Amino acid sequence: GKPFDPTDDPHRRYNPLLGEWVLVSPHRAKRPWQGQSEEPSNEQKPSYDPTCYLCPGNTRVNGEVNPHYTGTFVFENDFAALKKDTQQASEKSGLFQFETEQGCSRVICFSPDHSKTLPELTDDERTEVVNCWKAQTEELGKEFTWVQVFENKGSAMGCSNPHPHGQVWAQQHLPSDPAKKLVQLGQYYAENQRPMLLDYAEQEVEKQERVVCQNDDWVVVVPYWAAWPFETLLLPRFDVQSLDKITDAQAYSLAQIIGDITSRYDNLFETSFPYSMGWHSAPFDNETHPEWTVHAHFFPPLLRSASVRKFMVGYEMMAEAQRDLTPEQAADRLKALPVVHYKKREN
Amino acid sequence: GKPFDPTDDPHRRYNPLLGEWVLVSPHRAKRPWQGQSEEPSNEQKPSYDPTCYLCPGNTRVNGEVNPHYTGTFVFENDFAALKKDTQQASEKSGLFQFETEQGCSRVICFSPDHSKTLPELTDDERTEVVNCWKAQTEELGKEFTWVQVFENKGSAMGCSNPHPHGQVWAQQHLPSDPAKKLVQLGQYYAENQRPMLLDYAEQEVEKQERVVCQNDDWVVVVPYWAAWPFETLLLPRFDVQSLDKITDAQAYSLAQIIGDITSRYDNLFETSFPYSMGWHSAPFDNETHPEWTVHAHFFPPLLRSASVRKFMVGYEMMAEAQRDLTPEQAADRLKALPVVHYKKREN
Ligand SMILES: O=P(O)(O)O[C@H]1O[C@H](CO)[C@@H](O)[C@H](O)[C@H]1O
Ligand SMILES: O=P(O)(O)O[C@H]1O[C@H](CO)[C@@H](O)[C@H](O)[C@H]1O
Repeated sequence: GKPFDPTDDPHRRYNPLLGEWVLVSPHRAKRPWQGQSEEPSNEQKPSYDPTCYLCPGNTRVNGEVNPHYTGTFVFENDFAALKKDTQQASEKSGLFQFETEQGCSRVICFSPDHSKTLPELTDDERTEVVNCWKAQTEELGKEFTWVQVFENKGSAMGCSNPHPHGQVWAQQHLPSDPAKKLVQLGQYYAENQRPMLLDYAEQEVEKQERVVCQNDDWVVVVPYWAAWPFETLLLPRFDVQSLDKITDAQAYSLAQIIGDITSRYDNLFETSFPYSMGWHSAPFDNETHPEWTVHAHFFPPLLRSASVRKFMVGYEMMAEAQRDLTPEQAADRLKALPVVHYKKREN
Repeated sequence: GKPFDPTDDPHRRYNPLLGEWVLVSPHRAKRPWQGQSEEPSNEQKPSYDPTCYLCPGNTRVNGEVNPHYTGTFVFENDFAALKKDTQQASEKSGLFQFETEQGCSRVICFSPDHSKTLPELTDDERTEVVNCWKAQTEELGKEFTWVQVFENKGSAMGCSNPHPHGQVWAQQHLPSDPAKKLVQLGQYYAENQRPMLLDYAEQEVEKQERVVCQNDDWVVVVPYWAAWPFETLLLPRFDVQSLDKITDAQAYSLAQIIGDITSRYDNLFETSFPYSMGWHSAPFDNETHPEWTVHAHFFPPLLRSASVRKFMVGYEMMAEAQRDLTPEQAADRLKALPVVHYKKREN
């Protein structure tokens, strides 16, 4: 038979962050699609929407009135998944194990302007968002072990309001995925006396096979083990464990590279690109974490066009993640795109 | 503060099959929903659709013509994610690890009737489906380590054709989730000299808190650690490691209980209930697996109505699964439903 060709033949790649594998089936991208279509999001939204519960001056479901905020605005989630006052209880043996969880959950508005998304803000405005993530991480890290900053963007990602916003959930216990990372990163550090992700960033910058964009402080790659079609990993090129530890200059260069990758995303299919993104800072457990490097994941579902997404169902839910194009092919496409947002080009 | 109330207070439950936790936030079910709606599927389909590539006598994309089949019909996937002839290669050290994968991927038509779904077939017709799963498992288990039988139902679950069908993917290596289960079940067996899932089935039948339906051979529960709102686990009440080892009588009682649970699912929101379901037989690695019990998962996305689903995004993708009603509440609702399919009741 013909020799193994990674751009055409099925293979599995190892995700060293989670200790899991991903099935790569590049030849499968050729199949026709007759399934569900997503609604491409290209309608022009108004800067202020009187029915939006996140716009300045509007009233939320619980009767509270939003201030006339001008930058970012943070408030406690009116339907929080986590609460501070849960009484402690647990059962830790047998087949019915549980533990109570204490935490809190907040909404972070990125801008008063209802019509904007992260790539459409200026570098200064995005720096304010980064600084807000920093401040939330610092504040909540004093009280809780895990601080999960994230953004769900687009209705395909379960986002129930198009106003530019993200969330932060903080909690007492380390959740399942971060717990796996702690083990994997710790093991690599024990063997190599280096943080895995700092090594990884260096090797990717060296290879330039999966790098989408980079500046002096940060690099965005389609990771070798990406599961989602255009998944990316945002890594610092310096040793830092958590978001609250980056300098003002690093916050600004981070805002710049976030503008770069999110503009490329929107440009790929000329649509407001849906994704979930989130930050993993080291656990706030009063230990030092030399093995950990702060990083962000972007998990975007679109596969072929503004309306055709990848479904992680069936085989993926039962067995393991599976992808239809190689990470290198995805990186090439993102790299080839202009950085200027398509909405700014059009007139 | 008030004592811990599992029907209202946030807590985490442990999934002993995967060694992972799930965040349960029951009070969150009260939040309003303004996000994406699914298309409820209630259109009456024809028994034969000339444009369907799975209907008997029709031509597929690759030019092959389907036979005029009368029961189940199996063929090799025209856009297979796995192939038999991939040349072997691998890299098992460093941060860029891969291994080639050999396998095969087939489509299983459940019935020639385009308009039917599993709950709408007769017990005899469903027994034919079960026997087809058995035969595929037996045949492919001779050649491959892992045989993944599954069904994606409904466009919300990425199913690209409404003709009643499932798939079977078989492969050389053990995928990530089954590999976790092998460790967890092995550990339990070493400690208890009993298969975990047989113990679990017995304890659930005893408690009757999460059992949706049962017969002499099988039981369906909303597992204590369910992640999806109406997720269920289908377990044998006898010691059996893989699907190919069940008797004819057990295949028939299995067909019956599958009719029961899938009818309840459709009746819940009076819609054709979308889900991914799949079977986990023990690995076919020439070892005995006394620790393993064959079982099936149903992962259905709907949360509140035929059009409002749960999104596993953001926090769930970054941290861990999270649910908005307790497994007991979900089981109560499914248990209270009639078993007769709503389409049969309506006239
Ligand atoms: O093979 P299908 O039905 O076209 O495709 C569907 O099931 C596959 C296996 O679960 C998934 O990989 C695809 O993302 C999904 O759309
Ligand atoms: O809080 P939201 O935006 O209403 O809800 C969204 O994000 C949450 C956190 O990722 C998820 O649990 C919900 O399923 C999703 O719809």
